[in-house]
Amino acid sequence: MLETINGPQDLKNLDTKQLDELAQDIRKLILNTVSENGGHLSSNLGMVEATIALHKAFDSPNDKIIFDVGHQCYAHKILTGRKDSFSTLRTYGGISGFTNRNESEHDIFFEGHAGTSLSSALGIAEANKINGIDNYTVAVVGDASFSNGEFTEAVNNCNHKDLKLIIVLNDNDMSISKNTGSLHNYFSKIRASKKYIKFKRSLEYHLSKIPGIGKGIAKFFKIIKDFFKRIFVKPTLFESLGLDYIGPVNGHSISDVSKALEAAKIHENVCLVHIITKKGKGYSFAEEKPDKFHSISRFDLETGNTIESTSNFSEEFGKHLCEIAQANDKVCAITAAMCDGTGLTAFKEKYPDRFFDVGISEEHAITFASGMSSSGCVPVLAIYSTFIQRGVDQIIHDVSIQNMPLVLVLDRAGLVPNDGITHQGIFDFSLLSAIPRLNIYSPEKYSEMNKLLDRSVQEKSISVIRIPKGSENEYQHFLDTEYTDDLSMEYTVNSESANVVILTYGRLSAVAHGAAELLVGECNTGVVKLVQINPINYGKLAELTKNADLIYVLEEGIRAGGVGEKIAYNFCNSEKKVLVHSIDNYVEHGKLDDIMKECKFTKENVSSNIKKALRGVKKRK
Amino acid sequence: MLETINGPQDLKNLDTKQLDELAQDIRKLILNTVSENGGHLSSNLGMVEATIALHKAFDSPNDKIIFDVGHQCYAHKILTGRKDSFSTLRTYGGISGFTNRNESEHDIFFEGHAGTSLSSALGIAEANKINGIDNYTVAVVGDASFSNGEFTEAVNNCNHKDLKLIIVLNDNDMSISKNTGSLHNYFSKIRASKKYIKFKRSLEYHLSKIPGIGKGIAKFFKIIKDFFKRIFVKPTLFESLGLDYIGPVNGHSISDVSKALEAAKIHENVCLVHIITKKGKGYSFAEEKPDKFHSISRFDLETGNTIESTSNFSEEFGKHLCEIAQANDKVCAITAAMCDGTGLTAFKEKYPDRFFDVGISEEHAITFASGMSSSGCVPVLAIYSTFIQRGVDQIIHDVSIQNMPLVLVLDRAGLVPNDGITHQGIFDFSLLSAIPRLNIYSPEKYSEMNKLLDRSVQEKSISVIRIPKGSENEYQHFLDTEYTDDLSMEYTVNSESANVVILTYGRLSAVAHGAAELLVGECNTGVVKLVQINPINYGKLAELTKNADLIYVLEEGIRAGGVGEKIAYNFCNSEKKVLVHSIDNYVEHGKLDDIMKECKFTKENVSSNIKKALRGVKKRK
Repeated sequence: MLETINGPQDLKNLDTKQLDELAQDIRKLILNTVSENGGHLSSNLGMVEATIALHKAFDSPNDKIIFDVGHQCYAHKILTGRKDSFSTLRTYGGISGFTNRNESEHDIFFEGHAGTSLSSALGIAEANKINGIDNYTVAVVGDASFSNGEFTEAVNNCNHKDLKLIIVLNDNDMSISKNTGSLHNYFSKIRASKKYIKFKRSLEYHLSKIPGIGKGIAKFFKIIKDFFKRIFVKPTLFESLGLDYIGPVNGHSISDVSKALEAAKIHENVCLVHIITKKGKGYSFAEEKPDKFHSISRFDLETGNTIESTSNFSEEFGKHLCEIAQANDKVCAITAAMCDGTGLTAFKEKYPDRFFDVGISEEHAITFASGMSSSGCVPVLAIYSTFIQRGVDQIIHDVSIQNMPLVLVLDRAGLVPNDGITHQGIFDFSLLSAIPRLNIYSPEKYSEMNKLLDRSVQEKSISVIRIPKGSENEYQHFLDTEYTDDLSMEYTVNSESANVVILTYGRLSAVAHGAAELLVGECNTGVVKLVQINPINYGKLAELTKNADLIYVLEEGIRAGGVGEKIAYNFCNSEKKVLVHSIDNYVEHGKLDDIMKECKFTKENVSSNIKKALRGVKKRK
Repeated sequence: MLETINGPQDLKNLDTKQLDELAQDIRKLILNTVSENGGHLSSNLGMVEATIALHKAFDSPNDKIIFDVGHQCYAHKILTGRKDSFSTLRTYGGISGFTNRNESEHDIFFEGHAGTSLSSALGIAEANKINGIDNYTVAVVGDASFSNGEFTEAVNNCNHKDLKLIIVLNDNDMSISKNTGSLHNYFSKIRASKKYIKFKRSLEYHLSKIPGIGKGIAKFFKIIKDFFKRIFVKPTLFESLGLDYIGPVNGHSISDVSKALEAAKIHENVCLVHIITKKGKGYSFAEEKPDKFHSISRFDLETGNTIESTSNFSEEFGKHLCEIAQANDKVCAITAAMCDGTGLTAFKEKYPDRFFDVGISEEHAITFASGMSSSGCVPVLAIYSTFIQRGVDQIIHDVSIQNMPLVLVLDRAGLVPNDGITHQGIFDFSLLSAIPRLNIYSPEKYSEMNKLLDRSVQEKSISVIRIPKGSENEYQHFLDTEYTDDLSMEYTVNSESANVVILTYGRLSAVAHGAAELLVGECNTGVVKLVQINPINYGKLAELTKNADLIYVLEEGIRAGGVGEKIAYNFCNSEKKVLVHSIDNYVEHGKLDDIMKECKFTKENVSSNIKKALRGVKKRK
């Protein structure tokens, strides 16, 4: 069926059987592609039918459909002209795993962070009202995003507004990790009381047929009506919040969802359509283990097995934190809906009383950790680098100003493969190093990370430990290295005599050492790896660079406010030349190798830059 | 009565009459002090009785009472050993207008930003549970904070937890500006249905007396009970969210609040006590105009009149935005509960359809603005500098990545008098300049601001215009100045020949010109004022500093990631010496003059620094 679909208009006239066939075709394409390229599987399989219904009911791109987080946009991509390029999903130069404005007029925003869809949609709907445009705006949101703070702020701004705005709540009983919290409980209750809600709906319908305000007999009916309404019709939470409500609807029935959407269109208030879907629908392995298949790397379709990966920082972190927690019963772990992603699954099982998954609530997570810290616990908070952007004020206001010790582990720091522009961990250092009192570390090795964790848990200080996605570097150092006693740096023993020093941190150390080797014969190149990147141990650095004419800073992060600028500031009144090689703009999706190359983080490029720069230094002398 | 109270323990045995007297004494002290020193009046007057009840019911500091935002902590300060120092409120070296850990063990956190109290309280309560500590934790929160995203995230994490945690919702029907949104509507409904809720409570009580599970007759009663419960007892929103609920209670009756708090103590779940208070209670002018007296400068107690202030940036901004909106009907204004504070009151009255107050919801405000921008409107978003810290991810994810034009006006940028550590506008540049695609401006004059506004509204770009609290600089330039055509800089005409250039922006330009004058005879000093601080026009700057041996950067912002570091990076491979004079740590409360001096932002200090530095430059040569 899919072969006949080149855009949403092509599915308007299909009958039920054809639509069901289409759903199967889409599901097959998603499965085939994700098993090859990796991606977000469970939520996307769950949204196939509902997406068909959405594109049947609405007129995209005139009507705007916004997919929250973009974890559920694959069927949408396939239906909006990207079925042929779908095989390039998440590959370098291929289509993105999230909605992407550059790909299609049907993708209204780049979406990658949770809870933004309703705010955007409300903005569009209000603008349409001002501009006299009569189209619909639809925010499609998962139940996990519903409890995110930004989303509830948006809900609070929807009350009783005469806007052509519809919210589709995709309730799959499962956020990224297992859903928690009162909203989750509330949703469960609703799911369990379908009959009651059906009764309520039908009662409301019949009551609405009774004439309202009037005289005599009519007035009597009004009193009866209000009496019945008061007695029998409990408001749903959504109605308490000022939204109209339709649901719950079987999200795997195209016709049920279609009917609900058509009904929602005629509501005057902002209307929420509550659909129930099953994560992983149609693929038994994913239905059984929706967590595992939420975001998955390449896997075998027949067995559901992923290709066994090597070790990685997240897992090693989780493992070591369990050891720490065994020795210290005040140590607690906090995650914002990323239990698996941050390697905390074992901790959760071993120490359930000291494990807190707060949902997609980074703001709350940080202040909550600060509260724990104020009262004798040692909170270790694991958040993805890109999501710490959500908690900058809390790090300032609730941690730094309070001078409240805690350990913040930033996972996926630096370049992140495959997810692309919204998920790169390239801003955290610039944001956090602006804040007083933060010690920021960027280990290259598990052993460094573990030592830093041990120390940070002991210390009464605010520690940020940045770890990349993937495993530790394994390579031979071209030159012997030593660590400073305080673990703030590892440096090649030739540094003090070197005329060029490459200064770097984290994963790029391998590139730095490789470049130093390529430069043999050109110059004496030292490599200084900062393990602690804020504050920098400038005293030791002065020693290590005392004979350097050129300091080349190699940085896997944004230039503005980065380590490079701080190094330049430190050396700006010296005779040394400082060059900074970092990231100047957003980076799209692709394999780590591809995007590393895009940023010119290769030993060949670094060595050639240094050769060029040395010519300048010689000329100047 | 107040003279007998040196700490919370002293009010435990007072009788009703004595407590009422105490309330009057506290109210008088607050009025006298705020009329002299300025401060947050309306909310503090409203919380006098409830605070007495809190300190009667709980055992601070063993029990922890956390005041959200700290706009309602004056009575708490007076009751906890600070009645004698209360006259120093908000003055340099005096006590803070917000809760402050350095002042008292009864102040659990520095509080200044909204919506954090419950997250902190939850952290403390969970830590107490882990540590076997049996004390209560109480979060006191206004209705305006209740709809803030971080707060709702915390509520979502409270459900059915066996913690000694109580929430006091201080519902004064008014956030900082007039409250909006569905939660506000919901609260109004509850206030209007006291009788129903009383009935519900009593029914619940009687139902609870009916024996529960059992055999025969008891089972029959259980069925009856559930039937009645189902029919008559609608859950409040709070109950839907998993909280126990007591209320609404008259917040001006010490005994009513006390009773409610005692009842809350025996609940197993987290319990919310809903108190109703009147903003400005007991001072007629403030009761009538609670907005005006929310945060007020010195005023006449007899008349309620403030000393007429001169013009200020916020007002001028609001005025000019009205002119712009008259000419361009796509221009909209958005505020996050700071309509008055950001000067938008006139706009709100003139263009109600294009004015959006979204409540204390900075995250939502930004994404909402981006949505409007995507659909043909020109959103102008006015947020305090310190509160933009809440929206960093949204600026990255929903504005910059989308490349969505909008105008962000940052009010209270730079040092902010009187409010202190939590309110300084010193981080915004470091945070925002790390983000690609942002043009950041820091006008010194209204005329500059107005031109920048005109241009930003025209341009399809992301513009950030930082304005300080207070009025524009008025002083004679010591040397003639010119603007670049692009308005990126204003510079003294001697700059190109000067051997010292002071580089600065915004309000500190006056200090720079003053220092230049003091340096006559020592050196030829130019002054370059950046109007656009990101990206910096380095080409022009190279010309203007071509003969400078020393560039002295004078910056009213945090050093890390600031303009100074960027200038140093730009000149680090030149022969010029660069000195950066900015802010290295948090700044407490005081008059602008006091805190400017604390940061050594005086012409005397700057000129003396330059003299010292010049000796170094000469030696080096």
